[in-house]
Amino acid sequence: MEKVKIGIIGVGNMGRSHAHKLSNGEVNGAVLTAVCDASVEKLDWIRTNLPEEIQLFQDEDDFLNNADIDAIVIATPHYFHPPTAMKAFEKGLHVMLEKPAGTYTKNVQEMNEAAEKSGLIFSMMYNQRTNPLYQKLRDMILSGELGEIKRTNWIITDWYRSQSYYDSSEWRATWKGEGGGVLLNQAPHQLDLWQWTTGLMPKKVRAFISYGKYHDIEVEDDVTAYVEYENGATGVFITSTGEAPGTNRFEITGDRGKIVVENNKLVFYRLTESEREFNATSTTGFGRPECWEIEIPVKGDYTGHLGVLQNWINAILNGSPLLAPGTEGIKGLEISNAIYLSAWLDQTVELPIDAELYYQKLQEKIDQSTFQKKEAANVTLNVENSH
Amino acid sequence: MEKVKIGIIGVGNMGRSHAHKLSNGEVNGAVLTAVCDASVEKLDWIRTNLPEEIQLFQDEDDFLNNADIDAIVIATPHYFHPPTAMKAFEKGLHVMLEKPAGTYTKNVQEMNEAAEKSGLIFSMMYNQRTNPLYQKLRDMILSGELGEIKRTNWIITDWYRSQSYYDSSEWRATWKGEGGGVLLNQAPHQLDLWQWTTGLMPKKVRAFISYGKYHDIEVEDDVTAYVEYENGATGVFITSTGEAPGTNRFEITGDRGKIVVENNKLVFYRLTESEREFNATSTTGFGRPECWEIEIPVKGDYTGHLGVLQNWINAILNGSPLLAPGTEGIKGLEISNAIYLSAWLDQTVELPIDAELYYQKLQEKIDQSTFQKKEAANVTLNVENSH
Repeated sequence: MEKVKIGIIGVGNMGRSHAHKLSNGEVNGAVLTAVCDASVEKLDWIRTNLPEEIQLFQDEDDFLNNADIDAIVIATPHYFHPPTAMKAFEKGLHVMLEKPAGTYTKNVQEMNEAAEKSGLIFSMMYNQRTNPLYQKLRDMILSGELGEIKRTNWIITDWYRSQSYYDSSEWRATWKGEGGGVLLNQAPHQLDLWQWTTGLMPKKVRAFISYGKYHDIEVEDDVTAYVEYENGATGVFITSTGEAPGTNRFEITGDRGKIVVENNKLVFYRLTESEREFNATSTTGFGRPECWEIEIPVKGDYTGHLGVLQNWINAILNGSPLLAPGTEGIKGLEISNAIYLSAWLDQTVELPIDAELYYQKLQEKIDQSTFQKKEAANVTLNVENSH
Repeated sequence: MEKVKIGIIGVGNMGRSHAHKLSNGEVNGAVLTAVCDASVEKLDWIRTNLPEEIQLFQDEDDFLNNADIDAIVIATPHYFHPPTAMKAFEKGLHVMLEKPAGTYTKNVQEMNEAAEKSGLIFSMMYNQRTNPLYQKLRDMILSGELGEIKRTNWIITDWYRSQSYYDSSEWRATWKGEGGGVLLNQAPHQLDLWQWTTGLMPKKVRAFISYGKYHDIEVEDDVTAYVEYENGATGVFITSTGEAPGTNRFEITGDRGKIVVENNKLVFYRLTESEREFNATSTTGFGRPECWEIEIPVKGDYTGHLGVLQNWINAILNGSPLLAPGTEGIKGLEISNAIYLSAWLDQTVELPIDAELYYQKLQEKIDQSTFQKKEAANVTLNVENSH
């Protein structure tokens, strides 16, 4: 294959952004050959603004069966992610999946099994994994530089959205359309990085959620989750779309000190000895282990969506390793589902959660919804500086 | 009264520090005239190191009845605080009480009633209320500069203590001796400032506690508490004595922006308009209200223990207002008790908590304790740079 022929399904905010990159030739070894969207208006936009040789489809099956494509980018609303990916694997198409992997783990597990069976190249659009800050953080933790982890704390409240954002599409911020709010739309990046950089999945989750606290929506826009890990470490994850200015501060404490990622800096408060060792041997009462504050140099560029697309194309063409294997999308989603389930049951839940129970509870949310969107502008928003 | 004659009861770490200040004449209008401690060794130390005219007592009643004093400083282990204060009020003595006000609110409420009835000058040793950072923070919040509060978040994990600290006294870090760990010994300052600076008491608390996680102790050294306020705001308070280096970062988000107190700086991220107003009127989808990052100038010195002692003496001599009225000690203790109770019951608790239930549960902890201290050095530690 000289160039990978790409089809995009779903050309809302994100899909349109990917279409631009691909049709501009920004991704080496890839060419945009087809687009699918149920909206005539959106297809018209593609016809007007992108090269005319791009095939347009309104129907998904027609697209998957008849488009001249080797691989697809899925950028539809969340519920469609696993079913479309599974169809694509059946057709022998490589898949790049926008986050989240899905809305519930039950069918994401099935998608992962289908992906593994297919042998096709399946990647998640976890663009923030290309951020050198988090790559360096991960290297430092997994190499043991920080020692055994004691606590994680991520305040990620800088996902501010005004009401106009929620009014921009009918499916947005509804149980039926998105299956959730900030946890499924904005925070999936950090939910992934939380586990990816530390190498730790929570064992227990106790979460507190507010629905439509800052916006006229039925889903959550404010979340506090407390977690416990297998080794006894604890963690807190806080996210919201209702705070301005928000905070993005990730702190991880270990036996050898503390790392704080904030304001595009990675600062390591490095102990010159193990805290556990100091604790056992010090005779000073109020003494503390010696600590060096070090701003860790972080090299490389944040390549974002383009970097993940290129990584995926390289994997297809050359078999190089994926930065964000598609099957890892379930990890962040598992945490996200656990957070909802804990809040809905008003109790602590253990991971892995009961996927069937979660699915049932989500269906209840959809079935019992009485929320009426006042108006949906159905406009496409510019996401260039927002994700 | 020309000079207020002060007696100190309890000359462990803190009491000895206060004795030094008073006998050195550092507190205007006050003179140290008597000391009481059950330990002969500690009285010997006073005799050797402080002026010989200071009267020494081993028995509390003897001290309260016969010492030549107008006022007392109580720096005994926590359980003795309310009973001794109540006896002092009966004798017509003004009281300065070391934190915490007590170990459970039941008798602290009685103490407060006795104090109010007595008309005597009753102050809490909340030395951190003299910190201009928190005074300025309080001014900004109570004057409405930050707008209605949405979230509070205090990570106060820089109370590091090694095992040697806990081994320094038999009563330390036992249910019987202290009635708790980091929440009763180290964090009371921040529990007080959390409510004092914001003017908000939590309405509900859900907390998670680990006992002897980092030390050979029976009480807690690791705490995460989630709270909800009457207005719907939420908060998180995290404290530990097992992390090095710890963090002391207090973030408060409101309708008009965010304030962060960290590293002895008060930074105000000030919105030029109300977020609620922006949310309702913006049409930009991803837009955010304009925000100015301002380092707020903070004037004045942190006068600490000396400042609180002087404030108390001034109130006695001149009737000037107290910075830390003794009856306010119950507020931080109420939060502390609620955190324990939530963890013990493994459920959310509402404030004010059931004081009788808390007392019973605490007695159970004491009665069921099987913990044996390996060794207690019973040494006096230098606290000059530690509180």
